[in-house]
Amino acid sequence: MKTKEDKNKFRAALLQLAFSPAPEENLKKAEAYIIQAAGEGAQIICLPELFRSQYFCQTEDINLFDLAESIDGDTVKRMQVLAAKTKTVLVVPVFEKRAPGLYHNSAVIINSDGLIADIYRKMHIPDDYAYYEKFYFTPGDLGFKSVVTSYGKIGVLICWDQWYPEGARLTALQGASILFYPTAIGWHPAEKERHGEKQRDSWITIQRSHAIANGCYVGAANRVGFEQPVSEQAGIQFWGSSFICDPQGVMLVQGSIDKEEILHCEVDLKKMETVRRNWPFLRDRRIDAYGDITKRFRD
Amino acid sequence: MKTKEDKNKFRAALLQLAFSPAPEENLKKAEAYIIQAAGEGAQIICLPELFRSQYFCQTEDINLFDLAESIDGDTVKRMQVLAAKTKTVLVVPVFEKRAPGLYHNSAVIINSDGLIADIYRKMHIPDDYAYYEKFYFTPGDLGFKSVVTSYGKIGVLICWDQWYPEGARLTALQGASILFYPTAIGWHPAEKERHGEKQRDSWITIQRSHAIANGCYVGAANRVGFEQPVSEQAGIQFWGSSFICDPQGVMLVQGSIDKEEILHCEVDLKKMETVRRNWPFLRDRRIDAYGDITKRFRD
Repeated sequence: MKTKEDKNKFRAALLQLAFSPAPEENLKKAEAYIIQAAGEGAQIICLPELFRSQYFCQTEDINLFDLAESIDGDTVKRMQVLAAKTKTVLVVPVFEKRAPGLYHNSAVIINSDGLIADIYRKMHIPDDYAYYEKFYFTPGDLGFKSVVTSYGKIGVLICWDQWYPEGARLTALQGASILFYPTAIGWHPAEKERHGEKQRDSWITIQRSHAIANGCYVGAANRVGFEQPVSEQAGIQFWGSSFICDPQGVMLVQGSIDKEEILHCEVDLKKMETVRRNWPFLRDRRIDAYGDITKRFRD
Repeated sequence: MKTKEDKNKFRAALLQLAFSPAPEENLKKAEAYIIQAAGEGAQIICLPELFRSQYFCQTEDINLFDLAESIDGDTVKRMQVLAAKTKTVLVVPVFEKRAPGLYHNSAVIINSDGLIADIYRKMHIPDDYAYYEKFYFTPGDLGFKSVVTSYGKIGVLICWDQWYPEGARLTALQGASILFYPTAIGWHPAEKERHGEKQRDSWITIQRSHAIANGCYVGAANRVGFEQPVSEQAGIQFWGSSFICDPQGVMLVQGSIDKEEILHCEVDLKKMETVRRNWPFLRDRRIDAYGDITKRFRD
């Protein structure tokens, strides 16, 4: 039975992992890390984006749609079993096959009883050098939402979503106490030396800002390792740096740029309450004046 | 005559100043610093919030409405003369008396010919310990906007606005290449040691995030100095730290926490273009899914 104190706290963990070209290997690795994280006390565990494979979007190849699975496919089923077994809530990114020719970059939120709590489909789809996601993924049609789980209300967004304050806001406005960002971001080898540190810092900064603006926790689970699935591409050095920050944007735990790690933290709703009381941003939003946010540009 | 290169660049400056209880003294100091900044090459100069007085909102006192002036009052008139004389665009915060009993926390944007380009009225009004602004200021009714000036398109928001991604977004969507945040923020003496560095860091982070999310420059002009206008209050130690960051959120120039300073930087529209081409966030906004931003909470 939960004590009163428990209700205000839960333990979240991010898995920062490297992935091989073999999906089954990746899935097994993820399962082993989930068991370890749960053993260390994690109640809600988030995997990196598209964890079942290497980051295949470095090239546009219709054969790679073979990597996709339906929501009731093998990956999710195995994760449902594992969630129930470990009594953890799992945030499981999936390359989702929804219908022939219709694919999404999704995340399934599995409750600690093994049932699917909800699905999120990546809303913002990038397309730039070696991140050719618009070729593979139909933009999500389920919107931004918070999901009630056994341990707390969480929000899930995916990678490119992290650059959009709107997504974080809309999710937090449904009550999430933590926003998870499963991610696959790294350096182009040619840019790393000159721009690498700035890029990584911008990535951390924008996500910490979501915590600050919304008075909630934020956790980003990125992959590590160098991946070069096709020789015509220079490859991507995934920069890890997964982290969880508190409702003031203060870094609680941060991963390395190159090692596999489990990052644990405690989400404390009382701390969230305290931060929001002291900086009551939600009180003063000018909702009467935000209508033009739905415009492409105000010209 | 402007060369082609000039069109893509302008020089902005922030004044980080301390203020005395005597308005005329503050006004004269501001004038002297504007002349100095212009002499050093600044083309657009931004003053701190409510620069004509000490930060009077530490207490609620109806007599302090005497500090307010109309837009065609002495302060703006003198600044208009100075703008024309120095050929600078000035961002001039004003405690605006609009009508008897109707006051705003405003900023007048004066063009380099001395004419008023536009007025911004602070949209988000705070109210917390020693920042009793809801007592003094009616929330702005002019919305968020970019202003065309002789040297470039700029946006002006004020202090508490800086915590709201919506205000930055709406302003940037009208084309501003830099967002100015005249500010009056500092430490409560009792909190400084324990929370001070975290608070200042959150303040910097959220504003850098506006630069990143919108691919534009951001400049925050804060005051310095300890002010204790009423003995019943512990006073505020204004933390300076004024800064300008680039469209990737990289710090270009940053002031001390306790000294009067002029902070210069060059705003380069080509750099803005480059950053936005590499990280094309504006391209991928899900304007079809942002409607609920105008809700107070999504419960």
